[in-house]
Amino acid sequence: MANSNSYQELVIHASSHDYPVIIGSNIISNPQRVRHYVTGKQAMIVTNHTVAPLYLHYLQSALDDIQCDVVILNDGEPFKNQQSLGLIYDHLIAKHHHRDTTLIALGGGIIGDMTGFAAATYQRGVRFLQVPTTLLAQVDASIGGKTAINHQHAKNMIGSFYQPSAVLMDLNTLKTLPLREFRAGLAEIIKCALLEGGVFFNQVYDGLNNGLDSNFCDDLPAIIAACCQVKARYVQVDERESGIRALLNLGHTIAHALETYTHYERWLHGEAVAMGLYCAALLSCHYAQMDRRYVHLIDELLTRAKLPSRIPKDIVFEEIYSLLLQDKKIKNDAMRFILIKALGDCYIEEQVTKAVLRDIFQEATE
Amino acid sequence: MANSNSYQELVIHASSHDYPVIIGSNIISNPQRVRHYVTGKQAMIVTNHTVAPLYLHYLQSALDDIQCDVVILNDGEPFKNQQSLGLIYDHLIAKHHHRDTTLIALGGGIIGDMTGFAAATYQRGVRFLQVPTTLLAQVDASIGGKTAINHQHAKNMIGSFYQPSAVLMDLNTLKTLPLREFRAGLAEIIKCALLEGGVFFNQVYDGLNNGLDSNFCDDLPAIIAACCQVKARYVQVDERESGIRALLNLGHTIAHALETYTHYERWLHGEAVAMGLYCAALLSCHYAQMDRRYVHLIDELLTRAKLPSRIPKDIVFEEIYSLLLQDKKIKNDAMRFILIKALGDCYIEEQVTKAVLRDIFQEATE
Repeated sequence: MANSNSYQELVIHASSHDYPVIIGSNIISNPQRVRHYVTGKQAMIVTNHTVAPLYLHYLQSALDDIQCDVVILNDGEPFKNQQSLGLIYDHLIAKHHHRDTTLIALGGGIIGDMTGFAAATYQRGVRFLQVPTTLLAQVDASIGGKTAINHQHAKNMIGSFYQPSAVLMDLNTLKTLPLREFRAGLAEIIKCALLEGGVFFNQVYDGLNNGLDSNFCDDLPAIIAACCQVKARYVQVDERESGIRALLNLGHTIAHALETYTHYERWLHGEAVAMGLYCAALLSCHYAQMDRRYVHLIDELLTRAKLPSRIPKDIVFEEIYSLLLQDKKIKNDAMRFILIKALGDCYIEEQVTKAVLRDIFQEATE
Repeated sequence: MANSNSYQELVIHASSHDYPVIIGSNIISNPQRVRHYVTGKQAMIVTNHTVAPLYLHYLQSALDDIQCDVVILNDGEPFKNQQSLGLIYDHLIAKHHHRDTTLIALGGGIIGDMTGFAAATYQRGVRFLQVPTTLLAQVDASIGGKTAINHQHAKNMIGSFYQPSAVLMDLNTLKTLPLREFRAGLAEIIKCALLEGGVFFNQVYDGLNNGLDSNFCDDLPAIIAACCQVKARYVQVDERESGIRALLNLGHTIAHALETYTHYERWLHGEAVAMGLYCAALLSCHYAQMDRRYVHLIDELLTRAKLPSRIPKDIVFEEIYSLLLQDKKIKNDAMRFILIKALGDCYIEEQVTKAVLRDIFQEATE
């Protein structure tokens, strides 16, 4: 960014409406900017106990001329469930929020997914503003309208496609992000780099050599904006994931099973994605004749980002397999994985067998 | 209908897709017809303990070549809640239903609303077939994509707009419908007649003189088809109820408050709508200069349909009023009612005051 008040604006063209994605520093500390995106006389901010003390006051002071209520949820994937969603509904009803209210998600992907689902379903849909404060939410979760909660037995099993009215990304919020969470966000950036290849791949590769594994490096704003652009392109051509948008699930099939198996408690989502990317690389050698040297390259990227790539040996393949059978990406019982032919050239493989999967799983286990 | 195998087909043009509404006798007892609308290799029928013994076997035998599971819920508005919805999700996950499954709602409006919401949100949306077996569901709830569950404190507060793949209306199912439920369905027909006026009003008026208050009269198939056409027209021009579709809520503002106040236990939805229509008529005299003789006409229609029009005196106005404040149709704190200028000429009145409402309520109380 040229100076602290500069920002970039992308516009996402969704079937229901177009919406802006604002990327810059000092975005939420600018009350006019926040106020601009709340049109009614009511708003409810949904955040968690970690983020609230840091950034809630910015939004509250921007909205001090209207009814602005707050719900503060517990932080973490185990709370991305029906109970938390119920708390949001209860507050909305107790405070008499009407159909013209705006729900504001202030936090990471979990807050964004839950608040988005509440906005999609409260009174059959109210306005929804995304204010992502983690790297993962900024480069991935806040764009594209996927909302969800977890079911006890499966991640993101209940949700809807519901596009926000706007996404306000303040890069300053990354300065308070714990390093482990920052690195988890890098997993989605690496995924995008593999999907995109070319210039963007090199940008990420170079970034990881220039200290992108730490909380703030000069390359970060450009990489975040480029990543949002990649995501936007997929979302715009296939909003409801009936085709090409599924490629964004690269690394996610195994990641979701690992997360469910460990009750969403052991890894951050991005860490599970990192292991999933490594497995996808190994599967790609088998099914897509991907050059073996890319396995090493992917491993190198994950290592530079200080992300895990190997699956710990206490994880039991048979249990992961039975979770994979429940995955949303399964279609008519064929097991589907996103695989890599070459950098920038991924596809949906429909014929992955249990036997091959078992071998790959063993190879990826440390 | 000319003969027992004839049927009518309407096509609803929704933003996501077009879908057919099939109206006739012997629809669900025709296995080919049912099978035609299930495209994947999995389906789940959601029904209740009242309807299952009567009609479930038709659908099951039509789908005996694919995985066809069944969830049987308790019958009644008190069960239109998160717990029942949770049961549907649990079954879908336990039976490994994938994104290409079809949910089939076999029952009245409550089953249709809940199944539709489950279909809208399971894996962010799966196919959904409506098989309405009550008059109310056939003329109203099954068309237009409104899905919902109740919140403890407010009716239909959580839901989404989600259009079915098809609606299969078998008029034979009305033959087993209890008379009280049949008459509750007439309330929505009377509502449509008031909205539409003209030929359709006369058709309903004449029908009620020809025995439409009983389970089956010759006029019924034509009246049901005409009613579906009226509803389809509103839905097509305003799918998400940002404008004119709100007129379909004629009589519903007070009805919802009455139902919530009595925990959905005392009246059927249509009975509450009947009282709501009478209140709307009285309000219309005050705000819309509706001719007083229409109050008597509306009262006459409701009486002929053997529906209640007066509010029992144990209902406390102040409590109804505080429930009205939570209604979805409230916008920026103005109290909105659908009112009648003349037959076929309704509008949204935004300025109803508490004082007038109290007077009307008193007048409508028996």
